[in-house]
Amino acid sequence: MTGRRVCVVVSARPSYSRVKTALLAMQSHPTLDLQVVVTASALLERYGGIARMLEEDGLRIAARAATVLEGHDPTTMATSTGLALLKLVTIFENLRPDVVVTIADRYETLATATAAAYMNIPLAHLQGGEVTGSVDEKVRHAVTKLADLHLVSTARAAQRVIAMGEDPKSVFVTGCPSIDLAVEVANPSRAGDLTEQRRGTDRRLDLPADYVVVLQHPVTTECEQARAQMLETLHALRDCGVPAVIFHPNDDAGSEGTTRAIEEFRTSRNGDRLLYLDSLGPTDFLRLIHGSSCLVGNSSVGIREGSYLGVPVVNVGTRQKNRERAANVIDVAHDRASIAEALRRQLANGPYESDTLYGSGRAGERIASILTEVPLHIEKYFSG
Amino acid sequence: MTGRRVCVVVSARPSYSRVKTALLAMQSHPTLDLQVVVTASALLERYGGIARMLEEDGLRIAARAATVLEGHDPTTMATSTGLALLKLVTIFENLRPDVVVTIADRYETLATATAAAYMNIPLAHLQGGEVTGSVDEKVRHAVTKLADLHLVSTARAAQRVIAMGEDPKSVFVTGCPSIDLAVEVANPSRAGDLTEQRRGTDRRLDLPADYVVVLQHPVTTECEQARAQMLETLHALRDCGVPAVIFHPNDDAGSEGTTRAIEEFRTSRNGDRLLYLDSLGPTDFLRLIHGSSCLVGNSSVGIREGSYLGVPVVNVGTRQKNRERAANVIDVAHDRASIAEALRRQLANGPYESDTLYGSGRAGERIASILTEVPLHIEKYFSG
Amino acid sequence: MTGRRVCVVVSARPSYSRVKTALLAMQSHPTLDLQVVVTASALLERYGGIARMLEEDGLRIAARAATVLEGHDPTTMATSTGLALLKLVTIFENLRPDVVVTIADRYETLATATAAAYMNIPLAHLQGGEVTGSVDEKVRHAVTKLADLHLVSTARAAQRVIAMGEDPKSVFVTGCPSIDLAVEVANPSRAGDLTEQRRGTDRRLDLPADYVVVLQHPVTTECEQARAQMLETLHALRDCGVPAVIFHPNDDAGSEGTTRAIEEFRTSRNGDRLLYLDSLGPTDFLRLIHGSSCLVGNSSVGIREGSYLGVPVVNVGTRQKNRERAANVIDVAHDRASIAEALRRQLANGPYESDTLYGSGRAGERIASILTEVPLHIEKYFSG
Amino acid sequence: MTGRRVCVVVSARPSYSRVKTALLAMQSHPTLDLQVVVTASALLERYGGIARMLEEDGLRIAARAATVLEGHDPTTMATSTGLALLKLVTIFENLRPDVVVTIADRYETLATATAAAYMNIPLAHLQGGEVTGSVDEKVRHAVTKLADLHLVSTARAAQRVIAMGEDPKSVFVTGCPSIDLAVEVANPSRAGDLTEQRRGTDRRLDLPADYVVVLQHPVTTECEQARAQMLETLHALRDCGVPAVIFHPNDDAGSEGTTRAIEEFRTSRNGDRLLYLDSLGPTDFLRLIHGSSCLVGNSSVGIREGSYLGVPVVNVGTRQKNRERAANVIDVAHDRASIAEALRRQLANGPYESDTLYGSGRAGERIASILTEVPLHIEKYFSG
Repeated sequence: MTGRRVCVVVSARPSYSRVKTALLAMQSHPTLDLQVVVTASALLERYGGIARMLEEDGLRIAARAATVLEGHDPTTMATSTGLALLKLVTIFENLRPDVVVTIADRYETLATATAAAYMNIPLAHLQGGEVTGSVDEKVRHAVTKLADLHLVSTARAAQRVIAMGEDPKSVFVTGCPSIDLAVEVANPSRAGDLTEQRRGTDRRLDLPADYVVVLQHPVTTECEQARAQMLETLHALRDCGVPAVIFHPNDDAGSEGTTRAIEEFRTSRNGDRLLYLDSLGPTDFLRLIHGSSCLVGNSSVGIREGSYLGVPVVNVGTRQKNRERAANVIDVAHDRASIAEALRRQLANGPYESDTLYGSGRAGERIASILTEVPLHIEKYFSG
Repeated sequence: MTGRRVCVVVSARPSYSRVKTALLAMQSHPTLDLQVVVTASALLERYGGIARMLEEDGLRIAARAATVLEGHDPTTMATSTGLALLKLVTIFENLRPDVVVTIADRYETLATATAAAYMNIPLAHLQGGEVTGSVDEKVRHAVTKLADLHLVSTARAAQRVIAMGEDPKSVFVTGCPSIDLAVEVANPSRAGDLTEQRRGTDRRLDLPADYVVVLQHPVTTECEQARAQMLETLHALRDCGVPAVIFHPNDDAGSEGTTRAIEEFRTSRNGDRLLYLDSLGPTDFLRLIHGSSCLVGNSSVGIREGSYLGVPVVNVGTRQKNRERAANVIDVAHDRASIAEALRRQLANGPYESDTLYGSGRAGERIASILTEVPLHIEKYFSG
Repeated sequence: MTGRRVCVVVSARPSYSRVKTALLAMQSHPTLDLQVVVTASALLERYGGIARMLEEDGLRIAARAATVLEGHDPTTMATSTGLALLKLVTIFENLRPDVVVTIADRYETLATATAAAYMNIPLAHLQGGEVTGSVDEKVRHAVTKLADLHLVSTARAAQRVIAMGEDPKSVFVTGCPSIDLAVEVANPSRAGDLTEQRRGTDRRLDLPADYVVVLQHPVTTECEQARAQMLETLHALRDCGVPAVIFHPNDDAGSEGTTRAIEEFRTSRNGDRLLYLDSLGPTDFLRLIHGSSCLVGNSSVGIREGSYLGVPVVNVGTRQKNRERAANVIDVAHDRASIAEALRRQLANGPYESDTLYGSGRAGERIASILTEVPLHIEKYFSG
Repeated sequence: MTGRRVCVVVSARPSYSRVKTALLAMQSHPTLDLQVVVTASALLERYGGIARMLEEDGLRIAARAATVLEGHDPTTMATSTGLALLKLVTIFENLRPDVVVTIADRYETLATATAAAYMNIPLAHLQGGEVTGSVDEKVRHAVTKLADLHLVSTARAAQRVIAMGEDPKSVFVTGCPSIDLAVEVANPSRAGDLTEQRRGTDRRLDLPADYVVVLQHPVTTECEQARAQMLETLHALRDCGVPAVIFHPNDDAGSEGTTRAIEEFRTSRNGDRLLYLDSLGPTDFLRLIHGSSCLVGNSSVGIREGSYLGVPVVNVGTRQKNRERAANVIDVAHDRASIAEALRRQLANGPYESDTLYGSGRAGERIASILTEVPLHIEKYFSG
């Protein structure tokens, strides 16, 4: 254990999906000493028990930091960020990593980046340079400006990172590790049973033949509308009469509104065609998506992994605004009629061709190699 | 008090100098409700008692937040950032501002920006788009990406902000309010007595006829070299044999090294030609600079206010690397011979022509007007 | 507003019930300037929206501090305590109270007491000297040792506070303000309609003729058993076949276990005889208790307000161990057979005589008078 | 490393002196796994670089937590407590100790106790049951009420702990480990050279034949008077004309006043008879005390270790009020005439007989044994 100490902060189910193959590649790398820190919703059972999943996947957890406040509103999100920062400083002070890795654009990502920047620890950022809406858009680019090394998913993301003044030599297009999992799932010889791994149960999912998946998160800058926005989607589903698997939202400002809409729908109707899930493991989650007729909501999964898997997507609202996308996505506003119409079109269309916009596999290995070999430094200047 | 609530976070002597005329303009504005929050080193007497100065200048303090840890190293800086974030969230939760204003690139700036971004409060950033070295360079641009409104000092700063993907309509070139003070100081009819306002004393400064001013801060990304770097500058001064006024450094990682170098010099020699100061009020500070033969060190004051005042500057090391500058600056490395040679050249040259690169006055009024009138929003997209 | 500034920190539904009449008396007092700070679960809708209730009761909120972490386990409780401490320091720094009032024994109580003690603000503690089990027992007495003024409910509580070395002159037996509300509720002329005030709805409760109320919280030092303990109680209720109103637990370590037990019971049976509530306002809550046939669980309400109202109580487990009680309480272990047997005995017994052990009304007025008049100081010595 | 994990939090020079022999005994114990956490002023060089000393003494540091704010006033002390709490929670979450040990009565002691209590980790408290003045008095007893195991120095301390309602079976009179060091120092065969170990220098102290030692800390509840109080002591010393070794104060509210008084005296006189020290290692510190003619100030060292060493003490002010003492102490107020008179009396008296009030050695071993063998639990009830 005398190699470069690489500390990766995993903070949520989506970020785990987008770094899992890189973590496994790092853990088995002979001259890299992996330190996994688990924080935020990744520690909470109701967001899928990611900490437990990590250990089941054979990864060792070096430290934990509980940081999520109850009452998801703008004040509690900002408080959680401050708390995450203080706890991560304490952890980095004791783990003394050579490089810290942060993923995407959540508040824990910014807390991780701030801690590393002030502690003079080189910072690598995964998934910079993409564009969306909401506060994530601000945070993702702020993290780019705090980071020393950029491991991005697409060529256009790389261009944007460089346009923001980053040194082109610090930018690497690796593809997204989530596509590594999608490649596996798309490969029929590896298909397996699909079980709900939530809360330690192993309930086998009893899925109908044709189902859609709903994955809709609150938009933090529109958090007051979260309940109304979710109701539009749920009404559209009912109007189309398709069976649906519905996931609970992320722990962002507004998530209580989204959850309330789901609860209202769940209790007000017999709900025979709706199945509610808290979370699935990364691979099972992709299997579920892969097997679905359409993905409805505003998760980036439809745009990223969905593009490779060719799954039809109805993307609702502003959350993924501007994100680079393949042909599999139809964009609509938070309006039940528009959602229902787009959903009928996608069901009629069926699966799309696979698109390698976000990668074609082996991103995890590439990231592990770069983190092992690239020279590390903390000084940078505005370039161009 | 029913106007727009504008909350300005003042955290250090330099940031106060660069916002003072804007604060006074806002406080006297009929439809703007100013909320001044004082935090970080601005609350500490040994950094100049800025809180006290603010009140002496007629400004009302709405809230205070003590955040600076002892033992200025990377860990304590990161801790102070987290602490500032938690305290500012608590304060914003209770002041409920309509817009938050943050200044320049210190850690409190990033804490302020993070709090505002997650609390869905529109954020205005002063002095974005400039370029330097150190962690400040990372933080300044990260704050730009978190901010909704950019009030920048120069046209080139505006270009850089826009290059980073900000909407040109959100960028305003106002000049730097510090130049408003410089205009006042440069006007001989307003010149006044120069007294040290430190710690409540009113000791009148007894300055020699020809003196240089030394203002050198640690570079956080080179914090281990802080003591050695300061010693080079002090040796150069001794070699040139000029009387000097020396200020204590900012509370950044490495400041203990800088201070130790000063202390060592102070006690090892009779020190008859060196005068040590903790701090002066913004106007007295500029009067001192204006009256000096040369400014030595790495403070941005030489480059900004110095350019308007035409004061010769010897800029040492990487801290101001790349910052836009006028003809009054000679750049040298941390090497006593180079410093001494540049100092002799500047003393021989004498005062430079005034340059309006960073503004020509009235920046404070312009900022107050913009903050009163501009439409506020929190949603933005990568532009260009 | 030039009177003594008295800052009361309200942090949960029970603490609001036990201070409400004192707050109203203070707010209308001519020479006392009340500052109400609302924090912890009192800010969260799912614990009853106490902040909203306070405002409906005509109380003005001076400051708020969101502090509750998700995932109620020992680590998050300790984290919430630290967060509450940092936020309360920030708030006290800006409100500058002359005396701080803290209530009972929750983690926010200890955070409040610690902040006041180190900030040299005299601290008054309500409900010291009582005895129970769990971490509350430790915290209550620790707060006594940090407090300068003790406003206790019973004569025996006063004896214990003095036994711990407190100056008898600093101890006042005021009775508990919750009994002021019980006196009102017990007075039939003031009885009113009972509506559920949760989440802004005004759903009128449709109660059966004979019902029991269940109020069972996790014991933090036994938090792993919370689910099993709640299941015993729920099974006992089913075995007795009585209709029951069941409340959700406090946000303590283990509360997810308690909630899960309730959810399991709710979904596994038709549940026709169980009504689940999140919270009620203090007065409605007492009306509900007053109208019930028996109270089952481990809430102190059965022992305090219940003693005055003469409501039969089945007290389960160690949480109220050693708390002074009247004749209305039967104690049993977490065992469904014992709980069911005790419940049948209480239903057969019917209402008890009113007992004034915890007061007989006017405690709120007494507390307001003492806080206005008593000399304040922060220096104390072990007495006796 | 499979024994009981005992986590000891060391936070200041005095607490290290009072636990050092216990730490060494624990580290060499075969079935105990020692985890030393270093925090607060123990991490700062200007308070003696205790972290460094610990390592020089052969102790391994398991974790560090920087927590001390600049600007020692009541607000910053309370902030440091909250910060210490959050960092210690993070550390305990990752070290998972079986028992936590906290020492004496500083703010870090209360932070440690609070973290352990809410995290359901059994807490052992060293030096409970003693009495003094200031906020320490409140905190010491509050920690007793949070603790599960009491390892006290004297029989009367044990009585007080029991009087406060603690179970006598949880109270052990071990003596104070600081006396273990005093026994060593008093033994002439082990005497050694005295060098100042501050800041890595090894400057040999050049002591006059007869000297007194001054060790005076601010009283946090009288922090505004700190400067004036220190000046009285310094004037008394000058009036008596004795050479003196003066230490810098602890980092408590008011310490800037104490330090300023020292600085004023240092610069205003030629100071030929005063020697200023930041800190010494525990053993050298005791050697210095042992060799002195008298100890002046308000440190508990005069009362504890001083009683064993028979050193004459002039104890000034309220800080040690009520602390159990031997014949070697004369108490006086903060008045230069009284201090000077008492000092002259003590110089005339010379050394006192050794008194074993606070122990007679082997306390460290006893503590290690108890912590290894005693049954651990977290549930307790008011006793008596």
